[in-house]
Amino acid sequence: MSRKAKESDHNLPTLADVATRAGVSTATVSRCLNSPDQVQERTRDRVMTAVQDLGYSPNFGARALAARRTNTIGAIIPTMENAIFARAIQAFQEELHASGVTLLVSSSSYSPEIEEEQIRTLVARGADALLLIGHDRSPAIYQFLENRGVPVLISWAYDPAIARLSIGFDNRRAMAELATEVLQLGHRTIGIISAECAGNDRARARVDGVYDAMRAQGLDPSTAYLIETHYSIENGGQALRRMMQHDPCPTAVICGNDVLAVGALQMARELGLAVPGDISITGFDDIELARVVDPQLTTVHVPHRDMGRQAARLLVDMVAGHPASDSVRLETTLRMRGTLGPPPAE
Amino acid sequence: MSRKAKESDHNLPTLADVATRAGVSTATVSRCLNSPDQVQERTRDRVMTAVQDLGYSPNFGARALAARRTNTIGAIIPTMENAIFARAIQAFQEELHASGVTLLVSSSSYSPEIEEEQIRTLVARGADALLLIGHDRSPAIYQFLENRGVPVLISWAYDPAIARLSIGFDNRRAMAELATEVLQLGHRTIGIISAECAGNDRARARVDGVYDAMRAQGLDPSTAYLIETHYSIENGGQALRRMMQHDPCPTAVICGNDVLAVGALQMARELGLAVPGDISITGFDDIELARVVDPQLTTVHVPHRDMGRQAARLLVDMVAGHPASDSVRLETTLRMRGTLGPPPAE
Repeated sequence: MSRKAKESDHNLPTLADVATRAGVSTATVSRCLNSPDQVQERTRDRVMTAVQDLGYSPNFGARALAARRTNTIGAIIPTMENAIFARAIQAFQEELHASGVTLLVSSSSYSPEIEEEQIRTLVARGADALLLIGHDRSPAIYQFLENRGVPVLISWAYDPAIARLSIGFDNRRAMAELATEVLQLGHRTIGIISAECAGNDRARARVDGVYDAMRAQGLDPSTAYLIETHYSIENGGQALRRMMQHDPCPTAVICGNDVLAVGALQMARELGLAVPGDISITGFDDIELARVVDPQLTTVHVPHRDMGRQAARLLVDMVAGHPASDSVRLETTLRMRGTLGPPPAE
Repeated sequence: MSRKAKESDHNLPTLADVATRAGVSTATVSRCLNSPDQVQERTRDRVMTAVQDLGYSPNFGARALAARRTNTIGAIIPTMENAIFARAIQAFQEELHASGVTLLVSSSSYSPEIEEEQIRTLVARGADALLLIGHDRSPAIYQFLENRGVPVLISWAYDPAIARLSIGFDNRRAMAELATEVLQLGHRTIGIISAECAGNDRARARVDGVYDAMRAQGLDPSTAYLIETHYSIENGGQALRRMMQHDPCPTAVICGNDVLAVGALQMARELGLAVPGDISITGFDDIELARVVDPQLTTVHVPHRDMGRQAARLLVDMVAGHPASDSVRLETTLRMRGTLGPPPAE
């Protein structure tokens, strides 16, 4: 079935229809679809709006895709710093390499705009498929990927309510489990240091997990003192300092990841607070940082390597035209180490 | 000046000459140069050998390059784990982004073969230029990049003896400075935990720096106990354990980077050794790990962010046809923290 034949199917919008609607030439539409980074953003937006309005889909069938195969897969992670994503991506790359596929990685600095640009660039550079972190992004960019016939796998998130194929863990349930341990030790004044929740479904789910646990123990979630900040050791420390000036100050601080928790731990030491004697601190991820601090962090262990390896296999299958039918849910486990204890006696 | 005109210049080998010598069609030669990942390795090797033997250079002049520009720059780092390269690459990416350039990163697992494959893939995917770590790699791959007219900047290394454009620091001198501090405290039995030196010019230079300092203090470098291992916290710990079984065991262990040093530090704690009372340990890099351990690591501070930012500017200039004429040497500084002290009294 040639592209011409497909495009002339009745009822299906054509490239010319898109061009007319967007007020540009068919060559420009074609360029938008094939080399979006060579088109001005304003033009690209107009064309992509027309593509979506009309439901136009370029004919990238399985055969065409196979012919265009570059054996390159792209991944976009929010940051390369702090090694939050590093271990999984390293395993992802090793597994892809074993299948003869080269990985190209971009990091978006947690910016949706930069991520969209990187998605378009990776597609323009011929990526056969993409690995993305979390579900939060504009419908337009998902539509772009669908139009271009580029398979996408979401990682770091498993949310049964979302149909899109993903591999990950239940951030909300994992954090609820950890928070339950904290509450069962008797903590009642809770601090939460989280990444910014807007645009970050993993961060939101983790905060919701703490709230779930509080409700289950008969506590009002609105009594938790929540600070949202960018992930960094320094920001974790600053957040803890602010919390300790609050009245009443928390006896346990649940952090959205290990990086924030290590920052909080360092600041607690600076403030002369014993951990966990004066204050308990918990993390999430179980990256290497968690085990080099003293005391070692109580945290949620995420199977990063396993996630990376399985994601690679799923994506290779998707490129070969055999997508998995179900999302993959991985188990997290609690790591009870040295930073969680009972609240100090009054 | 058209490509045709250039290719028919007398005395210059043509595409057809390469094809004849390699025993393949001109189309295959062309594909080797433009989409090497679509050509079987054996064929590619034959063609690239012919390209080198004949000194054939495809006519990618400044104008042609400008037309082909993708606003994509590639970087290949040895690993994404342990955040050794993360901070510089993050700064590199942010600066490129400010210039409208998207960064694609690959990590080679310290394997020369994987790195070559990734170089070819990034070039095939249209990278305008490449950032690579260190100088060590085969002449053939440098020749490939020159033939393809892809500008390359070497980072993490500044070696006045190498003409190739680079931005970095003098690994050897920086380590010699730190080792001098160690020796001046009175340490005479020295351990060195290094990355594997083969194929890693930075690791070699750092070991040589320790030897330089020993010689300057009248010590025989061959008395240093050297263990080479892959960079990881665990390997650093295992190396320290082996060293402490040696007789005489070192009173100071100089590590090739912070990751190994943190591993050694953890193992010292496990073995019941006080740091620096029983044993001194030093690192190199000053990544975040160095400051979250207790005591904090004495190490060499590398200006990672500055290196990343400046590398981005240099590469953007190179792509625009304005290469810097000189390599850039950045300064490192010693961070004297808590893990270095005098040797224990006999």
